[in-house]
Amino acid sequence: MSEVYAIRRTRLRDCCTAGGSEAALVSRPANVRYLAGAAPEGAVLLLGRTEDVLVSADPPDDRSPHTRPDDSLRLHVMPGLTGDPAVVAASLAVDQGADSLAVEEHHLTVTRHREIRSVAPHLRLTGIAGAVERLRVVKDEEEISCLRIGAEIADQALGELLESILVGRTERHLALELERRLVDHGADGPAFPTSVATGPHAGRPGHRPTDRRVEEGDFLSVCLGATYRGYRCEIGRTFVIGTAPADWQIELYDLVFSAQRAGREALVPGAACRDVDRAARQVLDSAGYAEALPAATGHGVGLEIDEDPQLTPAAMGKLDACVPVTVEPGVHLPGRGGVRIDDTLVVRPEADGGPELLTITTKELLAL
Amino acid sequence: MSEVYAIRRTRLRDCCTAGGSEAALVSRPANVRYLAGAAPEGAVLLLGRTEDVLVSADPPDDRSPHTRPDDSLRLHVMPGLTGDPAVVAASLAVDQGADSLAVEEHHLTVTRHREIRSVAPHLRLTGIAGAVERLRVVKDEEEISCLRIGAEIADQALGELLESILVGRTERHLALELERRLVDHGADGPAFPTSVATGPHAGRPGHRPTDRRVEEGDFLSVCLGATYRGYRCEIGRTFVIGTAPADWQIELYDLVFSAQRAGREALVPGAACRDVDRAARQVLDSAGYAEALPAATGHGVGLEIDEDPQLTPAAMGKLDACVPVTVEPGVHLPGRGGVRIDDTLVVRPEADGGPELLTITTKELLAL
Repeated sequence: MSEVYAIRRTRLRDCCTAGGSEAALVSRPANVRYLAGAAPEGAVLLLGRTEDVLVSADPPDDRSPHTRPDDSLRLHVMPGLTGDPAVVAASLAVDQGADSLAVEEHHLTVTRHREIRSVAPHLRLTGIAGAVERLRVVKDEEEISCLRIGAEIADQALGELLESILVGRTERHLALELERRLVDHGADGPAFPTSVATGPHAGRPGHRPTDRRVEEGDFLSVCLGATYRGYRCEIGRTFVIGTAPADWQIELYDLVFSAQRAGREALVPGAACRDVDRAARQVLDSAGYAEALPAATGHGVGLEIDEDPQLTPAAMGKLDACVPVTVEPGVHLPGRGGVRIDDTLVVRPEADGGPELLTITTKELLAL
Repeated sequence: MSEVYAIRRTRLRDCCTAGGSEAALVSRPANVRYLAGAAPEGAVLLLGRTEDVLVSADPPDDRSPHTRPDDSLRLHVMPGLTGDPAVVAASLAVDQGADSLAVEEHHLTVTRHREIRSVAPHLRLTGIAGAVERLRVVKDEEEISCLRIGAEIADQALGELLESILVGRTERHLALELERRLVDHGADGPAFPTSVATGPHAGRPGHRPTDRRVEEGDFLSVCLGATYRGYRCEIGRTFVIGTAPADWQIELYDLVFSAQRAGREALVPGAACRDVDRAARQVLDSAGYAEALPAATGHGVGLEIDEDPQLTPAAMGKLDACVPVTVEPGVHLPGRGGVRIDDTLVVRPEADGGPELLTITTKELLAL
């Protein structure tokens, strides 16, 4: 595994060299993890002139190979509460003879940036905001395999919930039960706070579970995901409670399903992100739901649950193969509820069978 | 309730005026919540020259009076994904005629700070890092009452767990069960990731639950807390599994208990934070555990689980009445396990009965 991280660091170093910096300081936790194999809380990574160093206030968690930093890194553990690892890393960069240091300006606060300046006044600070995030967009097969396992776990947890009795239970309890099942099936934990939305709440993006109980005739929308070895996936489904969905529920469901399918089918290497968004959005738009639509119809996933690319009307850029994204259009009608359907897929060339669906729970409208 | 928030904002405005700024931009979520009564994700608060405005990308969650922003604020909801609320707030400050704006430099990133500069080049940016945090240290009785209810919930959840069978269950499952019970009893959610540590893990601060199962003869240390209306408390206890604790377990427990009691007894208004830390620390120190000690023996709690004051050897400042803190010394012996005992208390004057213990679960060494 060690080589993977070393190769990633070399790619970042190339970016820095091209930008005129001799060293780089990575502080954003997901970026540290991507390059170092692990990110103890608050740890930063120095890509130095002579040596790469993981600077951490806490000793790393070495109980599992998946939380242990890459062996090829030097580890610098600071005694507790003695300062900011980023400031220590900047001093180490100076000790190594660097005269410039690229920092993550989109993560470092103004205060920390100023502290680095004050301990290393001769170090020229430049920016690498977004550089590691760009490296992270295209995943290797090892990363995709973690996402695939996470998606299987989420599918299992959701499948078990559907077999249980739902009427009368609260959103909060259903969400907690799903999270327990994720962990039962081997997840590190939930990928994000599980959303369970019933009746008038159904279809609200990011709905926080309340004490509302599931009732006959409700739409029930659920969005959950597992974190597996740090990788986060997402699945969302909407169901109807009771034996027969109402006509408006069937119509709305079919519409969102068509939009979601259009989005999925637009996932080909080379497609513009905004075109994927448009494919899904225009189905809902032309049915008169322009106002009810969320800002994005999907986004990348990986070490974070919401990363590049963004599938929005204003998104720049194109999709590459091996980019995992969600496709998750939805409609929420205030006071009535709504529908969301959300899958995690990996962009794959036509020759490899097209987009790989990771979250395989059925998208038929189930009446539970 | 509205008045409370308006008074808090007036106090912050006084700080800003004293610092020469006409307006302030608060971006750190717990600070926004403290001053506005609610903090939709990513929302920022402008204390403007003519009007205070909560700028948010999402509409606020108005399902409960406890998540609804203060009515006396103007609410500015941006359409989704159209930019950074902090940048919008800076423009509003300019529209109101401000020529200076105090920002939270310890929270704003370098990138966001630069964007504010570029949309408002004539606005002089100053700093208010830490100003709201200082206002938050001393709590009013409403805030303490939320902490008290949170502590009762945590006590209940822990008490129920102790009545169940523990041997053979994993740390992960016990932690999940505790979190479910917290929510059952009315918590918004856990105040922080619940820590359950068995056998050689026991006593490790911040231990993340693993798949290790509880065994006869283990130390079992548990640390959990409830969030109630945004306020977060903490309780930690250590137990022995089986009928009779070993001699070393009794000795270690008694020692940590004495240290924790010394810390609690040092909580008087006017006491130096470092003296409270020393009171607890020297008990462990003189028994030869100097190396095994954590950096802090306690910390403030409130809208965040770890806020000022810090109880550390290097801490500056004194305790005031109505400051809630944890007292949580512990010893962890690598390979053997250890003991942590953690309470949340409110500093009160002697005349009012001394420190108020919020977490009332017994601290006798229970054999379960």
